[in-house]
Amino acid sequence: MDIGRYKVTGRSPIHLDDFNTHETGSFTSNQDIRKAVEKNVLEMAQWQSKLYAEGKTGLLIIFQAMDAGGKDSAIKHVMSGVNPQGVEVYSFKQPSVEELSHDYMWRSFKALPPRGKIAIFNRSYYEDVLVVKVHKLYEQLNVPDRCKDADTIDKRYKHIRHFEEYLWDNGIITVKFFLHVSKDEQRERFLSRIKEKDKNWKFTKSDLDERSFWNDYQNAYQSAVNATATKISPWYIIPADKKWYSRAVVSQVLLHVLRDIHPQYPRVTQEQRKALSKYKEWLINEPLNKQ
Amino acid sequence: MDIGRYKVTGRSPIHLDDFNTHETGSFTSNQDIRKAVEKNVLEMAQWQSKLYAEGKTGLLIIFQAMDAGGKDSAIKHVMSGVNPQGVEVYSFKQPSVEELSHDYMWRSFKALPPRGKIAIFNRSYYEDVLVVKVHKLYEQLNVPDRCKDADTIDKRYKHIRHFEEYLWDNGIITVKFFLHVSKDEQRERFLSRIKEKDKNWKFTKSDLDERSFWNDYQNAYQSAVNATATKISPWYIIPADKKWYSRAVVSQVLLHVLRDIHPQYPRVTQEQRKALSKYKEWLINEPLNKQ
Repeated sequence: MDIGRYKVTGRSPIHLDDFNTHETGSFTSNQDIRKAVEKNVLEMAQWQSKLYAEGKTGLLIIFQAMDAGGKDSAIKHVMSGVNPQGVEVYSFKQPSVEELSHDYMWRSFKALPPRGKIAIFNRSYYEDVLVVKVHKLYEQLNVPDRCKDADTIDKRYKHIRHFEEYLWDNGIITVKFFLHVSKDEQRERFLSRIKEKDKNWKFTKSDLDERSFWNDYQNAYQSAVNATATKISPWYIIPADKKWYSRAVVSQVLLHVLRDIHPQYPRVTQEQRKALSKYKEWLINEPLNKQ
Repeated sequence: MDIGRYKVTGRSPIHLDDFNTHETGSFTSNQDIRKAVEKNVLEMAQWQSKLYAEGKTGLLIIFQAMDAGGKDSAIKHVMSGVNPQGVEVYSFKQPSVEELSHDYMWRSFKALPPRGKIAIFNRSYYEDVLVVKVHKLYEQLNVPDRCKDADTIDKRYKHIRHFEEYLWDNGIITVKFFLHVSKDEQRERFLSRIKEKDKNWKFTKSDLDERSFWNDYQNAYQSAVNATATKISPWYIIPADKKWYSRAVVSQVLLHVLRDIHPQYPRVTQEQRKALSKYKEWLINEPLNKQ
Protein backbone atom coordinates (compact mmCIF):
# COMPACT_ATOMS: atom_id res chain seq x y z
CA MET A 1 0.00 0.00 0.00
CA ASP A 2 1.43 3.36 -1.06
CA ILE A 3 0.55 5.75 1.75
CA GLY A 4 2.70 8.54 0.24
CA ARG A 5 -0.08 9.54 -2.14
CA TYR A 6 -2.35 10.46 0.81
CA LYS A 7 0.29 12.50 2.59
CA VAL A 8 0.30 16.31 2.38
CA THR A 9 3.36 18.19 3.62
CA GLY A 10 2.61 21.68 2.35
CA ARG A 11 5.17 21.67 -0.44
CA SER A 12 2.47 22.83 -2.86
CA PRO A 13 -1.25 23.55 -2.34
CA ILE A 14 -3.61 20.64 -2.84
CA HIS A 15 -7.17 20.55 -4.19
CA LEU A 16 -9.52 18.33 -2.27
CA ASP A 17 -11.25 17.38 -5.54
CA ASP A 18 -8.07 15.67 -6.67
CA PHE A 19 -8.45 13.25 -3.79
CA ASN A 20 -10.76 10.40 -4.58
CA THR A 21 -13.10 9.41 -1.71
CA HIS A 22 -14.00 5.91 -2.88
CA GLU A 23 -10.74 4.40 -4.08
CA THR A 24 -9.47 1.25 -2.40
CA GLY A 25 -6.03 0.85 -3.94
CA SER A 26 -5.43 -2.64 -5.22
CA PHE A 27 -7.99 -4.13 -2.82
CA THR A 28 -11.57 -4.98 -3.64
CA SER A 29 -12.98 -6.01 -0.30
CA ASN A 30 -12.37 -6.13 3.44
CA GLN A 31 -11.49 -9.84 3.03
CA ASP A 32 -8.48 -8.83 0.94
CA ILE A 33 -7.07 -6.55 3.56
CA ARG A 34 -8.30 -7.73 6.95
CA LYS A 35 -5.28 -9.87 7.72
CA ALA A 36 -2.89 -7.05 6.83
CA VAL A 37 -4.69 -4.66 9.18
CA GLU A 38 -4.58 -7.20 12.01
CA LYS A 39 -0.86 -7.56 11.48
CA ASN A 40 -0.41 -3.79 11.52
CA VAL A 41 -2.33 -3.47 14.76
CA LEU A 42 -0.23 -6.18 16.38
CA GLU A 43 3.00 -4.50 15.40
CA MET A 44 1.65 -1.10 16.52
CA ALA A 45 1.00 -2.57 19.96
CA GLN A 46 4.61 -3.69 20.20
CA TRP A 47 5.94 -0.28 19.23
CA GLN A 48 3.58 1.43 21.64
CA SER A 49 4.92 -0.70 24.45
CA LYS A 50 8.42 0.51 23.62
CA LEU A 51 7.26 4.12 23.23
CA TYR A 52 5.88 3.92 26.77
CA ALA A 53 8.99 2.30 28.24
CA GLU A 54 11.34 4.72 26.54
CA GLY A 55 9.29 7.80 27.45
CA LYS A 56 11.10 10.08 25.01
CA THR A 57 8.45 10.82 22.41
CA GLY A 58 4.74 11.59 22.62
CA LEU A 59 2.31 11.06 19.79
CA LEU A 60 -0.69 13.27 19.04
CA ILE A 61 -3.08 11.75 16.52
CA ILE A 62 -5.82 14.00 15.21
CA PHE A 63 -8.95 12.74 13.47
CA GLN A 64 -11.07 15.18 11.53
CA ALA A 65 -13.92 14.44 9.14
CA MET A 66 -17.36 15.50 8.03
CA ASP A 67 -20.15 14.02 10.15
CA ALA A 68 -20.37 10.25 9.67
CA GLY A 69 -16.90 10.28 8.14
CA GLY A 70 -15.91 7.28 10.26
CA LYS A 71 -13.75 8.82 13.01
CA ASP A 72 -15.22 6.77 15.86
CA SER A 73 -14.99 3.58 13.88
CA ALA A 74 -11.39 4.20 12.81
CA ILE A 75 -10.32 4.90 16.39
CA LYS A 76 -12.13 1.81 17.65
CA HIS A 77 -10.73 -0.58 15.06
CA VAL A 78 -7.21 0.71 14.72
CA MET A 79 -6.47 1.45 18.37
CA SER A 80 -8.26 -1.39 20.11
CA GLY A 81 -5.20 -3.62 20.14
CA VAL A 82 -3.08 -1.04 21.96
CA ASN A 83 -2.63 -1.02 25.75
CA PRO A 84 -5.07 1.63 27.01
CA GLN A 85 -2.59 2.60 29.76
CA GLY A 86 -0.55 4.34 27.08
CA VAL A 87 -3.41 5.92 25.13
CA GLU A 88 -5.97 8.59 25.90
CA VAL A 89 -8.82 9.50 23.57
CA TYR A 90 -10.32 13.00 23.82
CA SER A 91 -13.55 13.76 22.01
CA PHE A 92 -13.98 17.49 21.61
CA LYS A 93 -17.64 18.48 21.48
CA GLN A 94 -19.20 21.93 21.37
CA PRO A 95 -17.14 24.07 23.76
CA SER A 96 -18.55 24.68 27.23
CA VAL A 97 -19.09 28.13 28.73
CA GLU A 98 -15.83 27.72 30.65
CA GLU A 99 -13.94 26.67 27.53
CA LEU A 100 -15.34 29.61 25.57
CA SER A 101 -14.05 32.03 28.20
CA HIS A 102 -10.51 30.76 27.55
CA ASP A 103 -8.10 30.97 24.63
CA TYR A 104 -9.42 28.57 22.00
CA MET A 105 -6.62 26.01 22.35
CA TRP A 106 -6.83 25.81 26.12
CA ARG A 107 -8.88 22.64 26.22
CA SER A 108 -6.46 20.99 23.79
CA PHE A 109 -3.38 22.17 25.70
CA LYS A 110 -4.62 20.39 28.80
CA ALA A 111 -5.12 17.16 26.90
CA LEU A 112 -1.64 16.99 25.37
CA PRO A 113 0.10 13.64 25.75
CA PRO A 114 3.15 13.35 27.99
CA ARG A 115 6.19 11.81 26.35
CA GLY A 116 5.74 8.07 26.22
CA LYS A 117 2.01 8.26 25.56
CA ILE A 118 -0.40 8.59 22.66
CA ALA A 119 -3.26 11.09 22.69
CA ILE A 120 -6.02 10.74 20.15
CA PHE A 121 -8.08 13.83 19.43
CA ASN A 122 -11.49 12.94 18.02
CA ARG A 123 -12.01 16.41 16.54
CA SER A 124 -9.53 18.97 17.82
CA TYR A 125 -8.42 22.59 17.73
CA TYR A 126 -8.92 22.30 13.99
CA GLU A 127 -12.65 22.77 14.64
CA ASP A 128 -11.67 26.35 15.47
CA VAL A 129 -10.80 26.88 11.79
CA LEU A 130 -13.54 24.60 10.38
CA VAL A 131 -17.02 24.90 11.90
CA VAL A 132 -15.91 28.22 13.41
CA LYS A 133 -14.92 29.45 9.94
CA VAL A 134 -18.02 28.15 8.15
CA HIS A 135 -20.40 29.85 10.59
CA LYS A 136 -18.10 32.72 11.57
CA LEU A 137 -18.61 31.68 15.18
CA TYR A 138 -15.62 33.76 16.27
CA GLU A 139 -17.79 36.82 15.72
CA GLN A 140 -19.95 35.70 18.66
CA LEU A 141 -17.04 35.50 21.09
CA ASN A 142 -16.94 38.02 23.91
CA VAL A 143 -13.51 39.35 23.00
CA PRO A 144 -12.03 42.71 22.00
CA ASP A 145 -12.96 43.64 18.41
CA ARG A 146 -9.37 43.22 17.20
CA CYS A 147 -9.67 39.51 18.13
CA LYS A 148 -12.58 38.83 15.78
CA ASP A 149 -11.75 40.69 12.61
CA ALA A 150 -11.52 39.35 9.06
CA ASP A 151 -8.01 37.98 9.69
CA THR A 152 -9.05 35.79 12.61
CA ILE A 153 -8.91 32.48 10.74
CA ASP A 154 -5.60 33.30 9.05
CA LYS A 155 -4.14 34.16 12.45
CA ARG A 156 -5.37 30.85 13.78
CA TYR A 157 -3.64 28.95 10.95
CA LYS A 158 -0.45 30.66 12.05
CA HIS A 159 -1.05 29.83 15.72
CA ILE A 160 -1.53 26.19 14.77
CA ARG A 161 1.65 26.05 12.70
CA HIS A 162 3.58 27.61 15.55
CA PHE A 163 1.98 25.30 18.07
CA GLU A 164 2.77 22.12 16.16
CA GLU A 165 6.35 23.31 15.73
CA TYR A 166 6.50 23.84 19.49
CA LEU A 167 5.22 20.29 20.01
CA TRP A 168 7.84 18.93 17.62
CA ASP A 169 10.57 20.77 19.56
CA ASN A 170 9.23 19.10 22.71
CA GLY A 171 9.38 15.60 21.29
CA ILE A 172 5.64 15.39 20.54
CA ILE A 173 4.87 14.17 17.02
CA THR A 174 1.61 15.32 15.42
CA VAL A 175 -0.20 13.23 12.81
CA LYS A 176 -3.40 14.52 11.25
CA PHE A 177 -6.04 12.48 9.45
CA PHE A 178 -8.81 13.87 7.33
CA LEU A 179 -11.23 11.05 6.61
CA HIS A 180 -12.51 12.15 3.25
CA VAL A 181 -16.07 10.96 2.44
CA SER A 182 -18.35 11.88 -0.43
CA LYS A 183 -21.64 13.67 0.04
CA ASP A 184 -23.44 10.59 -1.30
CA GLU A 185 -21.77 8.30 1.19
CA GLN A 186 -22.71 10.67 4.02
CA ARG A 187 -26.36 10.45 2.93
CA GLU A 188 -26.20 6.64 3.03
CA ARG A 189 -24.69 6.66 6.50
CA PHE A 190 -27.26 9.16 7.80
CA LEU A 191 -30.04 7.00 6.36
CA SER A 192 -28.72 3.93 8.13
CA ARG A 193 -28.45 5.90 11.37
CA ILE A 194 -32.13 6.73 11.03
CA LYS A 195 -33.14 3.20 9.96
CA GLU A 196 -31.20 1.17 12.56
CA LYS A 197 -32.49 1.67 16.09
CA ASP A 198 -29.11 1.15 17.75
CA LYS A 199 -27.67 3.94 15.64
CA ASN A 200 -30.46 6.47 16.23
CA TRP A 201 -28.50 8.16 19.02
CA LYS A 202 -25.86 9.14 16.52
CA PHE A 203 -28.23 11.26 14.44
CA THR A 204 -29.73 14.68 15.12
CA LYS A 205 -31.47 17.29 13.03
CA SER A 206 -28.36 19.44 13.24
CA ASP A 207 -26.48 16.86 11.16
CA LEU A 208 -28.83 17.69 8.29
CA ASP A 209 -28.39 21.43 8.87
CA GLU A 210 -24.61 21.11 8.68
CA ARG A 211 -24.90 18.95 5.55
CA SER A 212 -26.39 21.92 3.76
CA PHE A 213 -23.05 23.69 4.24
CA TRP A 214 -21.18 20.83 2.54
CA ASN A 215 -19.26 22.99 0.07
CA ASP A 216 -18.26 25.53 2.69
CA TYR A 217 -16.88 22.75 4.85
CA GLN A 218 -14.94 21.25 1.95
CA ASN A 219 -13.42 24.66 1.28
CA ALA A 220 -12.60 25.12 4.95
CA TYR A 221 -10.89 21.71 5.06
CA GLN A 222 -8.92 22.45 1.93
CA SER A 223 -7.74 25.81 3.29
CA ALA A 224 -6.88 24.35 6.68
CA VAL A 225 -4.91 21.49 5.16
CA ASN A 226 -2.99 23.83 2.88
CA ALA A 227 -2.26 26.28 5.68
CA THR A 228 -1.13 23.74 8.26
CA ALA A 229 0.41 20.77 6.45
CA THR A 230 4.15 20.71 7.08
CA LYS A 231 6.92 18.20 6.86
CA ILE A 232 6.99 17.75 10.62
CA SER A 233 3.20 17.56 11.01
CA PRO A 234 1.68 16.35 7.76
CA TRP A 235 -1.96 15.80 6.92
CA TYR A 236 -3.18 12.51 5.52
CA ILE A 237 -6.25 12.73 3.30
CA ILE A 238 -7.75 9.28 3.52
CA PRO A 239 -10.35 7.90 1.07
CA ALA A 240 -13.16 7.11 3.51
CA ASP A 241 -16.16 5.94 1.50
CA LYS A 242 -15.10 2.38 2.29
CA LYS A 243 -14.51 2.20 6.03
CA TRP A 244 -12.49 -0.97 5.74
CA TYR A 245 -10.06 0.76 3.41
CA SER A 246 -9.73 3.95 5.46
CA ARG A 247 -8.95 1.90 8.56
CA ALA A 248 -6.32 -0.02 6.66
CA VAL A 249 -4.63 3.18 5.50
CA VAL A 250 -4.78 4.73 8.98
CA SER A 251 -3.19 1.65 10.52
CA GLN A 252 -0.50 1.64 7.86
CA VAL A 253 0.31 5.32 8.40
CA LEU A 254 0.47 4.97 12.18
CA LEU A 255 2.67 1.92 11.87
CA HIS A 256 5.08 3.91 9.69
CA VAL A 257 5.07 6.82 12.12
CA LEU A 258 5.89 4.49 15.02
CA ARG A 259 8.61 2.74 13.04
CA ASP A 260 10.12 6.14 12.24
CA ILE A 261 10.11 7.14 15.90
CA HIS A 262 11.74 3.78 16.52
CA PRO A 263 11.37 3.71 20.32
CA GLN A 264 13.51 1.20 22.20
CA TYR A 265 13.38 -0.33 25.66
CA PRO A 266 15.87 1.55 27.83
CA ARG A 267 19.31 -0.08 27.69
CA VAL A 268 20.79 -1.45 30.88
CA THR A 269 24.49 -0.64 31.38
CA GLN A 270 26.96 -3.26 32.49
CA GLU A 271 27.08 -1.59 35.88
CA GLN A 272 23.31 -1.72 36.20
CA ARG A 273 23.35 -5.35 35.13
CA LYS A 274 25.82 -6.16 37.92
CA ALA A 275 23.58 -4.38 40.41
CA LEU A 276 20.60 -6.36 39.15
CA SER A 277 22.50 -9.63 39.77
CA LYS A 278 23.16 -8.50 43.33
CA TYR A 279 19.47 -7.67 43.92
CA LYS A 280 18.60 -11.09 42.56
CA GLU A 281 20.89 -12.68 45.17
CA TRP A 282 19.27 -10.65 47.94
CA LEU A 283 15.81 -11.75 46.91
CA ILE A 284 16.79 -15.39 46.61
CA ASN A 285 18.63 -15.45 49.95
CA GLU A 286 15.98 -13.46 51.83
CA PRO A 287 15.44 -15.09 55.25
CA LEU A 288 12.07 -16.82 55.56
CA ASN A 289 9.42 -14.66 57.15
CA LYS A 290 8.83 -16.22 60.58
CA GLN A 291 5.67 -14.34 61.54
CA MET B 1 6.28 58.70 38.17
CA ASP B 2 7.66 57.97 34.72
CA ILE B 3 7.13 54.25 34.17
CA GLY B 4 8.20 54.49 30.52
CA ARG B 5 11.87 54.30 31.48
CA TYR B 6 11.38 50.82 32.95
CA LYS B 7 9.51 49.49 29.93
CA VAL B 8 11.26 47.33 27.32
CA THR B 9 9.47 46.64 24.04
CA GLY B 10 12.25 45.06 22.01
CA ARG B 11 12.88 48.06 19.75
CA SER B 12 16.58 47.82 20.55
CA PRO B 13 18.57 45.48 22.80
CA ILE B 14 19.00 46.55 26.42
CA HIS B 15 21.90 46.03 28.81
CA LEU B 16 20.87 45.12 32.30
CA ASP B 17 23.78 47.15 33.69
CA ASP B 18 22.12 50.29 32.37
CA PHE B 19 19.24 49.63 34.74
CA ASN B 20 19.88 50.92 38.20
CA THR B 21 18.69 48.61 41.01
CA HIS B 22 18.55 51.15 43.83
CA GLU B 23 16.99 54.23 42.30
CA THR B 24 13.75 55.55 43.80
CA GLY B 25 12.80 58.26 41.33
CA SER B 26 11.96 61.52 43.06
CA PHE B 27 11.01 59.73 46.28
CA THR B 28 13.21 59.30 49.33
CA SER B 29 11.14 57.05 51.57
CA ASN B 30 8.07 54.89 51.77
CA GLN B 31 6.33 57.77 53.59
CA ASP B 32 6.58 59.85 50.40
CA ILE B 33 4.88 57.28 48.25
CA ARG B 34 2.62 55.20 50.47
CA LYS B 35 -0.50 57.27 49.87
CA ALA B 36 0.00 57.15 46.10
CA VAL B 37 0.30 53.37 46.16
CA GLU B 38 -2.85 53.03 48.23
CA LYS B 39 -4.69 55.18 45.72
CA ASN B 40 -3.37 53.04 42.85
CA VAL B 41 -4.52 49.86 44.52
CA LEU B 42 -7.98 51.29 45.11
CA GLU B 43 -8.34 52.31 41.47
CA MET B 44 -6.99 48.92 40.34
CA ALA B 45 -9.72 47.20 42.34
CA GLN B 46 -12.35 49.25 40.54
CA TRP B 47 -10.97 48.39 37.11
CA GLN B 48 -10.67 44.72 38.05
CA SER B 49 -14.35 44.67 38.96
CA LYS B 50 -15.18 45.99 35.48
CA LEU B 51 -12.73 43.58 33.83
CA TYR B 52 -14.61 40.73 35.50
CA ALA B 53 -18.06 42.04 34.60
CA GLU B 54 -17.13 42.70 30.98
CA GLY B 55 -15.36 39.34 30.52
CA LYS B 56 -13.64 40.38 27.29
CA THR B 57 -10.00 40.57 28.30
CA GLY B 58 -7.78 38.41 30.48
CA LEU B 59 -4.61 39.60 32.16
CA LEU B 60 -1.49 37.52 32.69
CA ILE B 61 1.00 39.12 35.07
CA ILE B 62 4.41 37.49 35.30
CA PHE B 63 6.85 38.11 38.15
CA GLN B 64 10.44 37.03 37.72
CA ALA B 65 13.43 37.90 39.91
CA MET B 66 16.58 36.55 41.47
CA ASP B 67 15.96 34.83 44.83
CA ALA B 68 14.84 37.36 47.45
CA GLY B 69 14.04 39.84 44.69
CA GLY B 70 10.71 40.64 46.33
CA LYS B 71 8.18 38.77 44.16
CA ASP B 72 6.08 37.47 47.06
CA SER B 73 6.04 40.83 48.73
CA ALA B 74 5.10 42.70 45.56
CA ILE B 75 2.22 40.30 44.89
CA LYS B 76 1.01 40.57 48.47
CA HIS B 77 1.10 44.35 48.66
CA VAL B 78 -0.05 45.28 45.19
CA MET B 79 -2.78 42.67 44.72
CA SER B 80 -4.24 42.48 48.22
CA GLY B 81 -6.87 45.10 47.51
CA VAL B 82 -8.29 43.21 44.53
CA ASN B 83 -11.26 40.83 44.81
CA PRO B 84 -9.73 37.34 44.97
CA GLN B 85 -12.67 35.96 42.97
CA GLY B 86 -11.13 37.56 39.90
CA VAL B 87 -7.48 36.73 40.60
CA GLU B 88 -5.50 33.49 40.75
CA VAL B 89 -1.87 33.30 41.83
CA TYR B 90 0.23 30.38 40.58
CA SER B 91 3.65 29.77 42.11
CA PHE B 92 5.74 27.61 39.84
CA LYS B 93 8.27 25.55 41.79
CA GLN B 94 10.66 22.88 40.55
CA PRO B 95 8.71 20.85 38.01
CA SER B 96 7.23 17.53 39.15
CA VAL B 97 7.90 14.22 37.43
CA GLU B 98 4.55 14.52 35.66
CA GLU B 99 5.33 18.08 34.52
CA LEU B 100 8.76 17.03 33.24
CA SER B 101 7.16 14.34 31.09
CA HIS B 102 5.14 17.04 29.29
CA ASP B 103 6.01 19.90 26.95
CA TYR B 104 7.61 22.57 29.12
CA MET B 105 4.74 25.06 28.88
CA TRP B 106 2.06 22.54 29.75
CA ARG B 107 1.75 23.54 33.38
CA SER B 108 1.49 27.19 32.38
CA PHE B 109 -1.08 26.50 29.66
CA LYS B 110 -3.38 24.95 32.23
CA ALA B 111 -3.10 27.97 34.50
CA LEU B 112 -3.96 30.58 31.86
CA PRO B 113 -6.61 33.08 32.93
CA PRO B 114 -10.02 33.03 31.29
CA ARG B 115 -11.15 36.35 29.87
CA GLY B 116 -12.40 38.53 32.72
CA LYS B 117 -9.79 37.30 35.15
CA ILE B 118 -6.24 38.02 36.23
CA ALA B 119 -3.63 35.28 36.61
CA ILE B 120 -0.42 36.04 38.43
CA PHE B 121 2.52 33.79 37.71
CA ASN B 122 5.05 33.84 40.54
CA ARG B 123 7.85 32.53 38.35
CA SER B 124 6.65 31.14 35.04
CA TYR B 125 7.63 29.47 31.77
CA TYR B 126 10.48 31.98 31.74
CA GLU B 127 12.24 29.68 34.21
CA ASP B 128 12.62 27.37 31.22
CA VAL B 129 15.02 29.88 29.65
CA LEU B 130 16.59 31.07 32.94
CA VAL B 131 17.53 28.39 35.49
CA VAL B 132 17.24 25.84 32.68
CA LYS B 133 19.71 27.86 30.60
CA VAL B 134 22.15 28.54 33.44
CA HIS B 135 22.42 24.86 34.39
CA LYS B 136 21.66 23.43 30.92
CA LEU B 137 18.88 21.42 32.57
CA TYR B 138 17.34 20.68 29.17
CA GLU B 139 20.23 18.28 28.59
CA GLN B 140 18.84 16.08 31.37
CA LEU B 141 15.40 15.80 29.79
CA ASN B 142 14.37 12.41 28.47
CA VAL B 143 13.70 13.65 24.94
CA PRO B 144 15.01 12.91 21.45
CA ASP B 145 18.50 14.38 20.92
CA ARG B 146 17.21 16.97 18.44
CA CYS B 147 15.16 18.45 21.31
CA LYS B 148 18.18 19.22 23.46
CA ASP B 149 20.75 20.59 21.11
CA ALA B 150 22.63 23.88 21.32
CA ASP B 151 19.65 25.77 19.81
CA THR B 152 17.22 24.69 22.50
CA ILE B 153 17.10 28.00 24.34
CA ASP B 154 16.82 30.04 21.13
CA LYS B 155 13.92 27.84 20.03
CA ARG B 156 12.26 28.46 23.37
CA TYR B 157 12.55 32.22 22.96
CA LYS B 158 10.72 31.79 19.68
CA HIS B 159 8.05 29.57 21.24
CA ILE B 160 7.49 32.20 23.91
CA ARG B 161 7.17 35.03 21.38
CA HIS B 162 4.69 32.96 19.38
CA PHE B 163 2.80 31.99 22.50
CA GLU B 164 2.40 35.55 23.78
CA GLU B 165 1.25 36.62 20.32
CA TYR B 166 -1.33 33.84 20.45
CA LEU B 167 -2.50 35.09 23.85
CA TRP B 168 -2.79 38.62 22.51
CA ASP B 169 -4.91 37.36 19.60
CA ASN B 170 -7.15 35.68 22.18
CA GLY B 171 -7.67 38.83 24.22
CA ILE B 172 -5.17 37.87 26.94
CA ILE B 173 -2.72 40.67 27.77
CA THR B 174 0.71 39.66 29.10
CA VAL B 175 2.71 41.95 31.41
CA LYS B 176 6.14 40.86 32.58
CA PHE B 177 8.04 42.20 35.59
CA PHE B 178 11.68 41.62 36.32
CA LEU B 179 12.34 42.79 39.87
CA HIS B 180 15.94 43.86 39.51
CA VAL B 181 17.98 43.63 42.75
CA SER B 182 21.69 44.05 43.32
CA LYS B 183 23.92 41.27 44.55
CA ASP B 184 24.58 43.27 47.72
CA GLU B 185 20.91 43.68 48.47
CA GLN B 186 20.38 39.95 47.97
CA ARG B 187 23.07 39.28 50.59
CA GLU B 188 21.31 41.61 53.07
CA ARG B 189 18.00 39.86 52.51
CA PHE B 190 19.52 36.40 52.87
CA LEU B 191 21.19 37.50 56.11
CA SER B 192 17.90 38.73 57.51
CA ARG B 193 16.22 35.47 56.47
CA ILE B 194 18.84 33.65 58.54
CA LYS B 195 18.68 36.09 61.47
CA GLU B 196 14.90 36.38 61.84
CA LYS B 197 13.28 33.15 63.02
CA ASP B 198 9.99 33.78 61.19
CA LYS B 199 11.90 34.12 57.95
CA ASN B 200 14.06 30.99 58.34
CA TRP B 201 11.66 28.91 56.23
CA LYS B 202 12.44 31.13 53.26
CA PHE B 203 16.14 30.23 53.20
CA THR B 204 17.92 27.08 52.09
CA LYS B 205 21.48 26.18 51.22
CA SER B 206 20.51 26.02 47.55
CA ASP B 207 19.89 29.79 47.63
CA LEU B 208 23.60 30.22 48.31
CA ASP B 209 24.51 27.77 45.56
CA GLU B 210 22.44 29.67 43.03
CA ARG B 211 23.95 32.96 44.21
CA SER B 212 27.32 31.75 42.98
CA PHE B 213 25.85 31.74 39.46
CA TRP B 214 24.86 35.42 39.78
CA ASN B 215 26.48 36.59 36.54
CA ASP B 216 25.11 33.69 34.53
CA TYR B 217 21.65 34.52 35.75
CA GLN B 218 22.04 38.20 34.91
CA ASN B 219 23.11 37.22 31.41
CA ALA B 220 20.22 34.82 31.08
CA TYR B 221 17.77 37.53 32.17
CA GLN B 222 19.25 40.01 29.75
CA SER B 223 19.02 37.56 26.84
CA ALA B 224 15.48 36.52 27.74
CA VAL B 225 14.29 40.12 28.01
CA ASN B 226 15.87 41.04 24.69
CA ALA B 227 14.47 37.98 22.94
CA THR B 228 10.92 38.25 24.25
CA ALA B 229 10.14 41.93 24.87
CA THR B 230 7.59 43.11 22.31
CA LYS B 231 5.17 45.96 21.98
CA ILE B 232 2.23 43.70 22.82
CA SER B 233 3.97 41.96 25.73
CA PRO B 234 6.65 44.24 27.15
CA TRP B 235 9.02 43.61 30.01
CA TYR B 236 9.32 46.04 32.90
CA ILE B 237 12.70 46.10 34.61
CA ILE B 238 11.91 47.42 38.07
CA PRO B 239 14.54 48.80 40.48
CA ALA B 240 14.00 46.47 43.41
CA ASP B 241 16.61 47.26 46.05
CA LYS B 242 13.94 49.33 47.80
CA LYS B 243 10.87 47.17 48.11
CA TRP B 244 8.62 50.15 48.75
CA TYR B 245 9.68 51.68 45.45
CA SER B 246 9.38 48.50 43.39
CA ARG B 247 5.85 47.99 44.69
CA ALA B 248 4.97 51.54 43.80
CA VAL B 249 6.22 51.10 40.24
CA VAL B 250 4.45 47.75 39.85
CA SER B 251 1.16 49.25 41.02
CA GLN B 252 1.59 52.18 38.67
CA VAL B 253 2.31 49.92 35.69
CA LEU B 254 -0.66 47.66 36.40
CA LEU B 255 -2.93 50.64 36.82
CA HIS B 256 -1.85 51.91 33.41
CA VAL B 257 -2.39 48.51 31.83
CA LEU B 258 -5.90 48.30 33.26
CA ARG B 259 -6.71 51.86 32.17
CA ASP B 260 -5.52 50.98 28.66
CA ILE B 261 -7.74 47.90 28.56
CA HIS B 262 -10.52 50.21 29.76
CA PRO B 263 -13.06 47.53 30.67
CA GLN B 264 -16.66 48.66 31.14
CA TYR B 265 -19.72 47.21 32.81
CA PRO B 266 -21.87 45.66 30.10
CA ARG B 267 -24.37 48.17 28.73
CA VAL B 268 -28.05 47.47 29.16
CA THR B 269 -30.15 48.15 26.06
CA GLN B 270 -33.44 50.05 26.28
CA GLU B 271 -35.25 46.79 25.64
CA GLN B 272 -33.39 45.06 28.47
CA ARG B 273 -34.13 48.02 30.73
CA LYS B 274 -37.86 47.66 29.99
CA ALA B 275 -37.64 43.97 30.81
CA LEU B 276 -35.86 44.78 34.07
CA SER B 277 -38.73 47.13 35.05
CA LYS B 278 -41.17 44.32 34.42
CA TYR B 279 -39.18 41.89 36.59
CA LYS B 280 -39.11 44.51 39.33
CA GLU B 281 -42.92 44.68 39.24
CA TRP B 282 -43.14 40.89 39.48
CA LEU B 283 -40.89 40.81 42.50
CA ILE B 284 -42.74 43.64 44.26
CA ASN B 285 -46.17 42.15 43.56
CA GLU B 286 -45.20 38.59 44.40
CA PRO B 287 -47.96 37.01 46.57
CA LEU B 288 -46.94 36.48 50.18
CA ASN B 289 -45.65 33.00 50.88
CA LYS B 290 -48.32 31.38 53.02
CA GLN B 291 -46.39 28.35 54.19
